[in-house]
Parts: sequence; C-alpha cells; structure tokens
Amino acid sequence: MNYGLPCEKMKDTNFGGGIREILAQADEMQKSGRSVIHMEIGRPDFDSPECAKRAAIRALEERNVHYTDMAGTPELRSEIAAKYKRDAGMDIDPDREVVVTSGAVEALATVFMTMLNPGDEVIVPSPYFPVYDDQIRMAGGVLRAVPSKIENGFRPDPGDIERAITSKTKIIMINSPNNPTGATSTRSELEAIAELVKSRGLLALSDECYEKFAYDENTPHVSMASLPGMKERSFTISAASKTFSMTGWRVGWVLIPAETKPFIMKCHQGIATCSNSFAQAGVAEALRSAWPDVELMISEYKARRDMMVDMLSKIDGIETPTPRGAFYAFPSIRGLGLPSFEFCGRLLAETGVATVPGQPFGAEDGYMRMTYCRPRGEIKEALTRIGDFAAKLRR
Amino acid sequence: MNYGLPCEKMKDTNFGGGIREILAQADEMQKSGRSVIHMEIGRPDFDSPECAKRAAIRALEERNVHYTDMAGTPELRSEIAAKYKRDAGMDIDPDREVVVTSGAVEALATVFMTMLNPGDEVIVPSPYFPVYDDQIRMAGGVLRAVPSKIENGFRPDPGDIERAITSKTKIIMINSPNNPTGATSTRSELEAIAELVKSRGLLALSDECYEKFAYDENTPHVSMASLPGMKERSFTISAASKTFSMTGWRVGWVLIPAETKPFIMKCHQGIATCSNSFAQAGVAEALRSAWPDVELMISEYKARRDMMVDMLSKIDGIETPTPRGAFYAFPSIRGLGLPSFEFCGRLLAETGVATVPGQPFGAEDGYMRMTYCRPRGEIKEALTRIGDFAAKLRR
Repeated sequence: MNYGLPCEKMKDTNFGGGIREILAQADEMQKSGRSVIHMEIGRPDFDSPECAKRAAIRALEERNVHYTDMAGTPELRSEIAAKYKRDAGMDIDPDREVVVTSGAVEALATVFMTMLNPGDEVIVPSPYFPVYDDQIRMAGGVLRAVPSKIENGFRPDPGDIERAITSKTKIIMINSPNNPTGATSTRSELEAIAELVKSRGLLALSDECYEKFAYDENTPHVSMASLPGMKERSFTISAASKTFSMTGWRVGWVLIPAETKPFIMKCHQGIATCSNSFAQAGVAEALRSAWPDVELMISEYKARRDMMVDMLSKIDGIETPTPRGAFYAFPSIRGLGLPSFEFCGRLLAETGVATVPGQPFGAEDGYMRMTYCRPRGEIKEALTRIGDFAAKLRR
Repeated sequence: MNYGLPCEKMKDTNFGGGIREILAQADEMQKSGRSVIHMEIGRPDFDSPECAKRAAIRALEERNVHYTDMAGTPELRSEIAAKYKRDAGMDIDPDREVVVTSGAVEALATVFMTMLNPGDEVIVPSPYFPVYDDQIRMAGGVLRAVPSKIENGFRPDPGDIERAITSKTKIIMINSPNNPTGATSTRSELEAIAELVKSRGLLALSDECYEKFAYDENTPHVSMASLPGMKERSFTISAASKTFSMTGWRVGWVLIPAETKPFIMKCHQGIATCSNSFAQAGVAEALRSAWPDVELMISEYKARRDMMVDMLSKIDGIETPTPRGAFYAFPSIRGLGLPSFEFCGRLLAETGVATVPGQPFGAEDGYMRMTYCRPRGEIKEALTRIGDFAAKLRR
C-alpha cells in the first residue's frame, strides 16, 4: 500500500547514505568468512570504566530501576556541573542549566526541535556528522553548510561563517573536535565565532562530544559557553559515549540557557522522558572517578593517530592534514583518480579494509573517513593494505 | 534575551499543564515534613524482575556496553516477535517489522515524525496521555480529539470516530487499556475501528503499553494488528516499562509495516540512535522468563483496582465506571461542586492525597485521575481521606 513516505519534511533526505551500503558490504564479506578491518565506525574499542559498571550494578541492586527526574538525577546533574567547573571554570546551575538526555543525539534533536521555526537556518561547517542534517529537517529548519577547507586543516573559517549569515540564521553550530575530520578549532577562531553570535543576535550550538580527545597542546579544547557572554547564548552538547567509552549506555547532556528550560523539557519529554536510571548512576560515578581510564584511552588514541598519520603521509596520492582531535582522519584521495564511493567500495572488496566516502558528511567527492578506534596492529595492517591498493591504482 | 520561544510548532502547547503544579505542591509538602500519598504518577511500585536485572548485569560484565544494531539487538527483536506469536498468533518478522526504541515515548515520537505531513490529522480518543498532543505538534500534525463518554465506560465509540474522519485524517490512534481512564475496548469495538481504517485508507497507531493489565475476562486485550488485514496498516507500540515494572530501563518497541522501515529508522536514528545495550539484554530475558513476576503483579493490581473501585463507589458525589485495565481510575467529581483543579489542589493541601485533574488529559472539567500503583494500605487510607473530604464538601 501507499504510505505516503517519505513525509514532506524528509523529502530531500538521503535515505541511502552510502555508509549503510559499506556496512552491508562489510557484513556480507564477514558472513562469507573474509576478515574485515573496521575503520568505518566511530565506536571505541575499549570497555567502559569498571567503576561505572560497578555503580550501575549497584543501582540495579538497590532498585533504582524506575523513571528518574526527567532532567536527569540530581546526582548526575551535579557531577556534570562540577566537570565544567573543573575543566573550564564555568558556573553551571545543575537545577536550571543541565538536562540529561538519552545520548548526545537526543540532546541535539531536542535543541533543534525546541528552537527552530520553519525555514530557520542553522549554519553548520562541513564536513559534518550526517545526523545533524536529518535532525534539522525534522525540526523544520534548514542546514546551511559552510565548507571547511583542507588547506586550513578543515578548521571552519569565521569569515566564511560570517558570509553565510542571513536574516533567517538562528544558530551557528560548532563541532570541535570534529567528526569526521578531527579538526580542532583554536581559541581565537572560537572567539571570532562567538563575536559573530553575539553581534548578530544568534545562538551557538556546540557539539563537544569529543572534548577530551584534543591531542595537541596548541589546540586544547575550549567550550564555546565558557567564552565571555556566551553561556546565555549557547547550547553545549556532550555525552559519556566517547569520553568514557560508554556508547551503549545512552547518556548524554545539554547545558542550556536557564530561561529555555521549560521549552527544552517539553520536547525532551516528548522524545525520551528520561535517560536510563542505572546508566545515569554509572555515568555519575564515571564523572567522579574514571579520569585515569580516560587518560589511558587518550594516550592510546594519540599513539594511534600518530601512527595513522605517519603511514598515510607516506602514501602517494593521499593527502591528510593532521587531525588534532576526535578519532578520525579525513584524507583526500583526489590524487588517486577514483570517485570516493568507488574507491571505498573497491578498497573493501579488494583489501578487506572498510572506510566510508566523504559525501554523506557533506564533503565534495574525493575524501574518505577512517577511524582509529582499532588496535594499533589492525591500523598498521590496514594502512599497509591501503598503501598497496593506492600503489596499484597509480600504476 | 529573547529566545523566540515557544517555537511556532509548539505555540499552542500547554507548558503549565497542571500535573507539574500538583507535583511541585506535593514536593513542597514533603519537604516541609508532611506525608503525601502519591496517587498521581503511573510509576509501578514493584522492583524489576530479578532475572532481568541478572541479565543486564551479565551483559555489563560481558562488555556489552557499546552501540547495538540501531533497530535493537537481534536477540531482543526475536523475543518480541515470539511474544506476539504466543499472545496473538501473529507472525512478525524480527528483521523487518520490529524496531526497539528508548521506551514507548520514543516509539510514538518516531511514528508521528516519520508519518505526518503538515496539517495531517490524528484521531485520538480523549481523555488521552498528554504527551501525544505535544508529539503530534512537534511532527507538524493536528490532534483531533474524539471524546469518550463516561456512560460508555470511557470506551471510544467507533461511530464518533467515523464522524471525526476528514480528508486530512491519516492515523486513528487507539490506547487500550487506556491511560488515564483504564477503559479497555472490546474486540467488536476494535473490529469496527479496524474496518474504518481499512475502508477509509488510513493507518492505525495502537499504544498497547498496558496490554498485560486487562483484568476482566469479557475485555481481554486484543492487538489491533492481529485483526485481519491490519498488520500492514498498523503501528503497534509497547514497552517493558509497565509490563515488567521496568520504567527506568527505557526500552520499548514498535511493530511496523515492513515497507516503512527505512523511513522509521531514519527518524529513530535522528532521535535516539539505539536503546541502552545492557537494558536490552535485560528486557530480552524478561520476555523469556519474567512472566511469573508479571502474573503476581497483575493479581495485585487487580486486587487494588477492586478495592479502589469499591471504596470510590461508596462516596456520594463521585462516579467511577469500573476501569477494566491499566492502573488508573478516572472518577467524575462533578457531584462535588468544585472545579477539578481546585478539587485536586485542596485535596492535596487538606488531606495529603495527590491526584491530578482531568483537563491535561483532554477531558472536560469535573474529572480527576488516580493511579493504584501504591500498596493496598495506602490506597485504603487515601480513599478514606477522599471520602471524608467529599463529605465535608457536601455539608
């Protein structure tokens, strides 16, 4: 029968995507017995911190198994506020400025759904996490992409952002460190964007899910909301998922301007009610006690990043600005003469290395995304195979 | 600063609500040391089944702590399909017709967001769960309420539903057993509604969260999608929350027409990604093994229902059709001469019994909702106080 799908708000949505096809192809190959090295999914390969698991188990045993406060448990909101005090000197009111969500994705959806009117524009530096586009459409808004350039290490240019502002612009979005490029904006770049937000009467939406993964001293993570005058103009998204290797726990949060809370809560209630009760207990404990685990993960990721960038830099036809954060690299493969979809498809079929083409992230043809959420041995093997494949293409 | 809130799609939303005010008042009273009997929240007072808790703990210990398949783990989807086979003889394909969500609320939001175009109407018998209204607005649709009458035990009248159909109607919604009235539709009523859905080219959305709480032999639960020709026209919502007393786990699901899956998944991904990984393991185990726990809960709820209805029936000025399911009663207090908000407010202030007025559920003035998710001793005490309060009003 005719279901009238997709509905109008999703009519220009990309339902194929490309990533899904790569995943399906990798899945097929594995089922037929071939080994696949997974460089395509940003899923940490570490276990969640033991202290968090113990706290969740304790909560289950203590019957903390029912709805929590819709904004999150007071315990978790306090720990979140304390984190921003420690990290950025911010004074966050856990009762009025923190809402715990079912992961960062729900936090993002809630902000867009709460804030956007039909046709409102959200400036999003590209490449970007593809879900942003779907979420903005669902909320009735329009994603206005501002391409970041490989020559600038994929860091968004405040001048380009300024030129994209129109009378319909409501939100400027920042995602530093960035998925899929690993680009990490400098403090002065963020200050310039903050000035735009303030002088043009806009709001900032800062997706800081990779905040702990900023590897280089000259580009430490800076929370947009910590800049002068920005707290009341910012929505700050983060989550336990990447920071603590807890993607399956589905606990994220958003720092909000206090005045928006009744409206944010209405949407949050309509989308999710509250996050899992015992997972919240685990995340509160992680925020208190799991930082040594995080330090170990960061140093391992940094070592992997260095290995990957070093090996990529030796492959003729591939160009990779050093990703300063997150756990992705976004090399240009323009020098190898194949369109991205064909390149990634053949790379997988011929070498067993799974990567994803850049277009689903809003990039032009000629890029691919690789994660380094894999053990160093696998990364080394994958890069060796990519090198051989590239050499074959260039022959 | 001016945030431009509420946004246009929420401009007619009730941000006060009434329920929140009652909760705040009850909270204040408890903080000042007064005891409150909570008849206002539909939160089961039972622990979650031990087998589910053990399975979740095992999953945590076995490192099942990362993203699952976005549609839910294959294990859980299989158990859900098996449940519908056992309960209703339905053949559900776990790969194509089941999507696991972060609770029933996320499932509902996803269906509305996926299916509704601007101005599309959803017929919803009133009184209804207030979140429906917010969700339909967020998706750009319009809730068209069809009042159920107390004389008919609050069961929706198929004739009234038929008269509400317009050229903009897309979905007929059914919630049996019903929150807030406890009304449970008969098979023949559901068949009549199914005929309307089929003959008028519509879809059914059946919220069956209270499916296991149908206490009377003459109104057993019937899944709308189990009626002939209805599977491909139905979205069926349920969850672990009420059935297994697992509200804080945030695991629900929706049975969908297979053809809608790519579209449903796009919205689900944009709202939630996936449900908590170890909570899914717990719910799969509950679906296999927790039915003895459920039987005990059902018999206890039935005993409470009987006690509450018996005591309510003896209070002059209060009229209560026997709720056949769920764990709510929705008495008329029209005979007591106070508007509902004033009645519930004074009842709480003067007797310490918390209930909620009927209007937030789309009812006219003169009703209140009471849950019996409390031990029998509390229910008895609460009803005694309500009886005394009613007698005072009538003096």
